[in-house]
Amino acid sequence: MGKSVLIVNGPNLNMLGRREPEIYGKTTLQDIESLCAQHAGHKDWSIEFMQSNHEGAMIDALQAALGKHDGIIINAAAYTHTSVALMDAIKATNLPCIEVHLSNIFSREEFRHKSYISSVATGVICGFGAKGYTLAMDALADNFDTHK
Amino acid sequence: MGKSVLIVNGPNLNMLGRREPEIYGKTTLQDIESLCAQHAGHKDWSIEFMQSNHEGAMIDALQAALGKHDGIIINAAAYTHTSVALMDAIKATNLPCIEVHLSNIFSREEFRHKSYISSVATGVICGFGAKGYTLAMDALADNFDTHK
Amino acid sequence: MGKSVLIVNGPNLNMLGRREPEIYGKTTLQDIESLCAQHAGHKDWSIEFMQSNHEGAMIDALQAALGKHDGIIINAAAYTHTSVALMDAIKATNLPCIEVHLSNIFSREEFRHKSYISSVATGVICGFGAKGYTLAMDALADNFDTHK
Amino acid sequence: MGKSVLIVNGPNLNMLGRREPEIYGKTTLQDIESLCAQHAGHKDWSIEFMQSNHEGAMIDALQAALGKHDGIIINAAAYTHTSVALMDAIKATNLPCIEVHLSNIFSREEFRHKSYISSVATGVICGFGAKGYTLAMDALADNFDTHK
Amino acid sequence: MGKSVLIVNGPNLNMLGRREPEIYGKTTLQDIESLCAQHAGHKDWSIEFMQSNHEGAMIDALQAALGKHDGIIINAAAYTHTSVALMDAIKATNLPCIEVHLSNIFSREEFRHKSYISSVATGVICGFGAKGYTLAMDALADNFDTHK
Amino acid sequence: MGKSVLIVNGPNLNMLGRREPEIYGKTTLQDIESLCAQHAGHKDWSIEFMQSNHEGAMIDALQAALGKHDGIIINAAAYTHTSVALMDAIKATNLPCIEVHLSNIFSREEFRHKSYISSVATGVICGFGAKGYTLAMDALADNFDTHK
Amino acid sequence: MGKSVLIVNGPNLNMLGRREPEIYGKTTLQDIESLCAQHAGHKDWSIEFMQSNHEGAMIDALQAALGKHDGIIINAAAYTHTSVALMDAIKATNLPCIEVHLSNIFSREEFRHKSYISSVATGVICGFGAKGYTLAMDALADNFDTHK
Amino acid sequence: MGKSVLIVNGPNLNMLGRREPEIYGKTTLQDIESLCAQHAGHKDWSIEFMQSNHEGAMIDALQAALGKHDGIIINAAAYTHTSVALMDAIKATNLPCIEVHLSNIFSREEFRHKSYISSVATGVICGFGAKGYTLAMDALADNFDTHK
Amino acid sequence: MGKSVLIVNGPNLNMLGRREPEIYGKTTLQDIESLCAQHAGHKDWSIEFMQSNHEGAMIDALQAALGKHDGIIINAAAYTHTSVALMDAIKATNLPCIEVHLSNIFSREEFRHKSYISSVATGVICGFGAKGYTLAMDALADNFDTHK
Amino acid sequence: MGKSVLIVNGPNLNMLGRREPEIYGKTTLQDIESLCAQHAGHKDWSIEFMQSNHEGAMIDALQAALGKHDGIIINAAAYTHTSVALMDAIKATNLPCIEVHLSNIFSREEFRHKSYISSVATGVICGFGAKGYTLAMDALADNFDTHK
Amino acid sequence: MGKSVLIVNGPNLNMLGRREPEIYGKTTLQDIESLCAQHAGHKDWSIEFMQSNHEGAMIDALQAALGKHDGIIINAAAYTHTSVALMDAIKATNLPCIEVHLSNIFSREEFRHKSYISSVATGVICGFGAKGYTLAMDALADNFDTHK
Amino acid sequence: MGKSVLIVNGPNLNMLGRREPEIYGKTTLQDIESLCAQHAGHKDWSIEFMQSNHEGAMIDALQAALGKHDGIIINAAAYTHTSVALMDAIKATNLPCIEVHLSNIFSREEFRHKSYISSVATGVICGFGAKGYTLAMDALADNFDTHK
Repeated sequence: MGKSVLIVNGPNLNMLGRREPEIYGKTTLQDIESLCAQHAGHKDWSIEFMQSNHEGAMIDALQAALGKHDGIIINAAAYTHTSVALMDAIKATNLPCIEVHLSNIFSREEFRHKSYISSVATGVICGFGAKGYTLAMDALADNFDTHK
Repeated sequence: MGKSVLIVNGPNLNMLGRREPEIYGKTTLQDIESLCAQHAGHKDWSIEFMQSNHEGAMIDALQAALGKHDGIIINAAAYTHTSVALMDAIKATNLPCIEVHLSNIFSREEFRHKSYISSVATGVICGFGAKGYTLAMDALADNFDTHK
Repeated sequence: MGKSVLIVNGPNLNMLGRREPEIYGKTTLQDIESLCAQHAGHKDWSIEFMQSNHEGAMIDALQAALGKHDGIIINAAAYTHTSVALMDAIKATNLPCIEVHLSNIFSREEFRHKSYISSVATGVICGFGAKGYTLAMDALADNFDTHK
Repeated sequence: MGKSVLIVNGPNLNMLGRREPEIYGKTTLQDIESLCAQHAGHKDWSIEFMQSNHEGAMIDALQAALGKHDGIIINAAAYTHTSVALMDAIKATNLPCIEVHLSNIFSREEFRHKSYISSVATGVICGFGAKGYTLAMDALADNFDTHK
Repeated sequence: MGKSVLIVNGPNLNMLGRREPEIYGKTTLQDIESLCAQHAGHKDWSIEFMQSNHEGAMIDALQAALGKHDGIIINAAAYTHTSVALMDAIKATNLPCIEVHLSNIFSREEFRHKSYISSVATGVICGFGAKGYTLAMDALADNFDTHK
Repeated sequence: MGKSVLIVNGPNLNMLGRREPEIYGKTTLQDIESLCAQHAGHKDWSIEFMQSNHEGAMIDALQAALGKHDGIIINAAAYTHTSVALMDAIKATNLPCIEVHLSNIFSREEFRHKSYISSVATGVICGFGAKGYTLAMDALADNFDTHK
Repeated sequence: MGKSVLIVNGPNLNMLGRREPEIYGKTTLQDIESLCAQHAGHKDWSIEFMQSNHEGAMIDALQAALGKHDGIIINAAAYTHTSVALMDAIKATNLPCIEVHLSNIFSREEFRHKSYISSVATGVICGFGAKGYTLAMDALADNFDTHK
Repeated sequence: MGKSVLIVNGPNLNMLGRREPEIYGKTTLQDIESLCAQHAGHKDWSIEFMQSNHEGAMIDALQAALGKHDGIIINAAAYTHTSVALMDAIKATNLPCIEVHLSNIFSREEFRHKSYISSVATGVICGFGAKGYTLAMDALADNFDTHK
Repeated sequence: MGKSVLIVNGPNLNMLGRREPEIYGKTTLQDIESLCAQHAGHKDWSIEFMQSNHEGAMIDALQAALGKHDGIIINAAAYTHTSVALMDAIKATNLPCIEVHLSNIFSREEFRHKSYISSVATGVICGFGAKGYTLAMDALADNFDTHK
Repeated sequence: MGKSVLIVNGPNLNMLGRREPEIYGKTTLQDIESLCAQHAGHKDWSIEFMQSNHEGAMIDALQAALGKHDGIIINAAAYTHTSVALMDAIKATNLPCIEVHLSNIFSREEFRHKSYISSVATGVICGFGAKGYTLAMDALADNFDTHK
Repeated sequence: MGKSVLIVNGPNLNMLGRREPEIYGKTTLQDIESLCAQHAGHKDWSIEFMQSNHEGAMIDALQAALGKHDGIIINAAAYTHTSVALMDAIKATNLPCIEVHLSNIFSREEFRHKSYISSVATGVICGFGAKGYTLAMDALADNFDTHK
Repeated sequence: MGKSVLIVNGPNLNMLGRREPEIYGKTTLQDIESLCAQHAGHKDWSIEFMQSNHEGAMIDALQAALGKHDGIIINAAAYTHTSVALMDAIKATNLPCIEVHLSNIFSREEFRHKSYISSVATGVICGFGAKGYTLAMDALADNFDTHK
């Protein structure tokens, strides 16, 4: 209870609802933020929800989590597959970190099967749309319970 | 409500709690079954929980799910990485199927990063130990709600 | 005339007609067995027709063919692409063996292009649905004629 | 009934019977043509049987099949493994096309395992010598029946 | 007529004219902008011409094109070969997009042969220096005509 | 002004308009020839427009261009991906050469991403259908201007 | 002294003596069992000797060794090269395990050079026919001495 | 004497001292800056020392070095392994550039062995912690001497 | 004495002397033919010297060598690296065959290192310009002596 | 009886006991030589035991074994993975040769999994420390018995 | 102070100054030895400077360093890329070891990018010519200071 | 006339005539030396003929050729495929160098297809047995003539 969690969203996720609805559905990123806020309310958590198209801005946010948040949820979108720097930033925080993807990246193009983030994440949740974020929060809660 | 779910567990998972606790913890498969049964109770679901070291027996079980269950949760363990036959069996059921792994397979040996099951699964949850099973049930419930 | 042939069918083929009809059509495995039996009647052959989801059971059947059958037709389905053990079992029988596939495996996923069985088979027939089985019987008949 | 079929043979097949008999046997291409003509007679089909060492000439023949033939049988020999142009030509005819090989290409050199033609062919028959051509005609007949 | 086009230029293109003239020539990016403006004048188009060394800024610009521009021309320079995020951003705009490169990237280092952008672009033009931009505008005009 | 250009078209391009219209459209090669002739008229150029399914005939044509033409436009179709000989022939002419493709080869099958011709071409234009030919002529004109 | 050892034999080893004698010789699996029993007698050991064509049955046997045997000798035959599950089962027993092969797998086909079992085995012995089993028993005895 | 040097530091290096001390030690980036400043003092050099998590900001800084600095020292951290754009930016400056890494990247994960920067750097120094920066300054001094 | 030899030259070799003199020198193919004729005179041999840009024409020539020539010298040029059909044609002649290349193909582009012809040739000579042809004749003479 | 055996040890094995004891233990090469000498005594064999850090010296020793020794035991250490020349030397002796490794090379770095020697060795023994040498002698004795 | 350092130089480095001056310059190995001796004098160190074309001799020298030297500097030249044995020898000394290369091996041929030595070296310095040796001595001095 | 040539032979070539006669024939290295000496006599050349199993000794010999010999013939045997150091040594001599192999290395094992020496050799001759050495001398003579 009283935990603080950072939720980081990567490039093009601000386009959700306007783009390729057959893959991502009609839910917008604002909808997801509301969903997370509501779910956080039930747990008595505070959340910081951010999105950026800039890899560097995401790294800045992750670094700032040190001493401020208790856990991280990250949907790095396209940077998932190319960014060693995000991987290093997550490792540097030393916080539990859940990797989330809206779609099942393993049933899409081959180059989306590789994730630099997976190897430093606590766990991975993908394929469940917006629901993946609240599942990640539940997983994080379980992690907090185990290590409290 | 009143849903029926098949939970399939693959080779060596019956050894849980006796084997490599630094990776898998002390929880036994019976503990996981109890956890799932309890969680199913809350949802008013019935579950069938099976384990086998035999790839063929797992396929038999998956095939038998047709007309009997509404969804599948599968932790195929080592067969995840080698079994085209399980992949085909899951596709043949045409049911929503969640892939679960206790550990984060992406931070282990290279050959454990590849999953034949992921490409036919609805979604993937890995790295959360026994908790992954109940998260999978929640994800399945969400899937049932969306498609009811 | 008076030949005896073993026809081995691999995992998930018992689902034929219920599964992915856009690839495999509506014919069931029972339909194929009837077709083969009828075709065998014309040739005055006896056939043993078996299916299993278990790789080990398929190997048992192949080994038992020694001294009992004159030739083998095998549709190993998903095990085609992964089973060195089936390949070894076929080699051990030293009988003419025709590899059959219902669909054209070369126009499907990349991993279905590789067959361990092809390298020890007399020949390969794929892409003709149920018709492939009777073509295989004709090919086997030709082989019997050539080596009698 | 009354169908017309083009049978295309690729480079060096005119050398059959003179070359590497341990792989291809003593049958000449003329023998195969006779066999096909006889088999066509039973079906009341007309056939056009051609061979060329020139990839371009084979493409010319395939293109000319449009509006003239009802199906194609092709043994592209060495061009099987290297010709994207033949693959495109077959696709362009939009006719059912059976790929035939005298020997089992899968038990020969690695580079003979890959076929550009397989992915656009209706089906593949290999390893049965001259018999493969009449099996291909039977397969084609079955295809005509199914789509008539 | 009256179309609006976004022209996006990637990292280091602002150095044009100062850098490796044997590959890129003496033309500056300002020269290219003038050329494009002039060419746009002939077509009665308005253009927005931007350059950034920041992948995120390029994504921001692409996203902002939605509802504002009718087409995109992009020379992503080095990000061409590494950015899945730019590829996703282009897909998200759902606008016709022409990929341009000043030099022939296929006669340079191996890693410059791969483009993430090509697979989502309408077409590709490379090797013609500044002229490539006006060719791209002509190609875009043709695309507008075809789909108007 | 007064330039002479050779336009070489590879295998199966004579089938244009009859084949896979969802990729190539309804335009025939004759339409493209007319388009080029008309565009050449505007530039006061003469053109030689040829097509062949024979790799050797294309090489013959390219070699004959020496001392007869001022530039080359080539759409080598399927030979693009397999012919080292065409690449050598183009290099041997030492003339400016533009590579054209009707479709965007980079959004098609993997093996169509590789071009032997690109590395010796002045530039590449692909994805714009018949329009690609006139764009190539414009690019060639620009090349003539630069090097006159 | 008084040790108990499980000797596991994989698919097709029951065919020994009947199959490919130029590779495996005329010795049958019964001969090998006798040889092992006799050698065990000299050491005052008890042995359990099993063979199965079923991967799952081999895993069952390995799991049952926990608390019952002091060491394992395994000739997994064809499963050596494909079974992650056997590898996991051996790891789960936490017993010393010697990998044996009758033939020198490194002088056979390329795909037989890879062993999933080697990485979890104490050591490997291959190429010595039936003698390899008694060498493995001696190696196991040495291991028992070192760790007693 | 009187030289000016730009020292560029990449993503997460601002976390030095707080992150993975077993690899990077307790030295902070401020400590390194002081060390460099002091060493520059001995050489009568001025230095500009910058760090950014943004690839684009690093490129901006490198471009700005033209006409302002005499040499570059760069520790691109994670961007070392993924950024073609940084490589292009360094090439564009045409200044001597030394690549530095605190840890020995060759004894870490495989993907850290590849550097896009190495191929355009004058030389590489890695594995010596903060000392690597002053060694790089000495190497640069030697380069200045040689080319003055 | 009195031997007859076929000398086959592949695509673009008729351009010798006009093309890339820094690699191939100024010698024309006619010069090489004269050199070979003169060298053949010394040996009392007759030679047939042919060149074609058509792979099929080269195959035709090779097949015609059966019963007419005693040995073959082939410089297949670009087809060396791509033609399985030429390899098959050479094998079919069953004559001693020397592979010749004017330049050292191993110090050129990577794709020129692979030769389909080498594996069926008696021997290979490359890097000696026109001299390579007479060395090949000497090697062939030695081969005739050894097998007479 | 009365056999003579050469035991060859490769680079750095003279460091045994001083180096990486967690992998190789405290046994020195002298200990191993004594062990072998004692074991040879029991068999009434003479042995020649040599070590060199020089690949060439090991080849010299292997060649000298011809006509002098009846069998070879070799632990080529690091040269195992790189030396085609040792492989050729062993083949040239035509003597039975057992490959030994102290540690299980298959559970170490990837590049230690490949052995050039295995393909020409009679058999391989690895993972049993010094005991591996006497097991090799027993295996050799068995080989002598079989072929006497 | 009073440290002793071994400096090992590999094959062909004795040719320095006579060979490929555009890569290595005119400095001879004797010049480098003098430079090192002088630099050692400033530090009050003694150095042993050796060169050999024999991999085995280099290993002998490295082994002899145990108990005699405090650190190693090695320029293994061509053996860098192929020698597992040198890598093992360096590991066996357990001394700090700096890898030096005169040229920037990362801007040369692809096969020179891989170093077996890097993974066991303390650090790497390359691209600075003879200066690299004294930089390595400074780096070693820093290492001695840190671990004294 | 009056030229001096070094002929270098690699590992195991001193075993010629005793080893694998089906590949190398019965000729000994002494026979080849005599053949070369005789051929040198005809040309009024002096030759130095050496063989070693030591890579280092071969490099020593090559280095010593500088200022003493006019050309080199090398049969590096197994070192052909692994030695970067020999490649560097040949480059360092800056003398014309012919690579010779007795057998056709391209029709043997895959790993014998790669030669480090080819890329620095003037030319390659392989597959002609001992005759290859005199052909190499003729090729060298031609090279001397061209560059005198």
